[in-house]
Amino acid sequence: MKALLIISHGSRKETSNQEVRDLSLKVASQLGESFDVVEAAFLELADPLIPEGIRRCADLGAKEVLIVPYFLAAGRHVIEDIPGIVDAERPLYSDVRISIAPHLGSSDAMAAFVADSALSFKA
Amino acid sequence: MKALLIISHGSRKETSNQEVRDLSLKVASQLGESFDVVEAAFLELADPLIPEGIRRCADLGAKEVLIVPYFLAAGRHVIEDIPGIVDAERPLYSDVRISIAPHLGSSDAMAAFVADSALSFKA
Repeated sequence: MKALLIISHGSRKETSNQEVRDLSLKVASQLGESFDVVEAAFLELADPLIPEGIRRCADLGAKEVLIVPYFLAAGRHVIEDIPGIVDAERPLYSDVRISIAPHLGSSDAMAAFVADSALSFKA
Repeated sequence: MKALLIISHGSRKETSNQEVRDLSLKVASQLGESFDVVEAAFLELADPLIPEGIRRCADLGAKEVLIVPYFLAAGRHVIEDIPGIVDAERPLYSDVRISIAPHLGSSDAMAAFVADSALSFKA
């Protein structure tokens, strides 16, 4: 049983947090059968926080959790904060394989994605 | 003469800021002839800041500047801060049409992008 956990920063604007939760539903519909569950969690300012997000995946029966940091740049949050929080949770889930994918902004396809976004803008 | 200005948050980690500058070069190579110049600017913590980024585009001869907020979620920075800074600059450039595209995370293609990112991860 495999879970995808999308982690974003979290915002004081609840509409912004909801945007990420809605995204995770859309991602789930794109994944086919590769992942059994898709959850969203937040680094701060919104619920669920990362530990609770991991807990949800494990409670649903996940034996593998792939964490995708929904961040564009490799700042402190990506380099230190998220790995630190995840490492602190690992001992609680000895039977779950928890991996962290590279942050979204590091994707080779990002430049084309930004270019497409610019080209599709109609003023 | 048309410029694309990619705006990201800016980080205390200079490697993170450089990641965005490198991205803007890659985006330029993807755009073909639709834009004559691509610049990167930052909301805070890194140079150039947004006013200087707009200035660079104008100095290069841009009559149109399309700003792409390189942000995933519509938090305060996207909703208030960037439009506020841009609006404050507009009176200085009466002959330049400055537009702000929707933030990157609002793209309809984002869910598929995140899904592809997850599916391509090899643990």
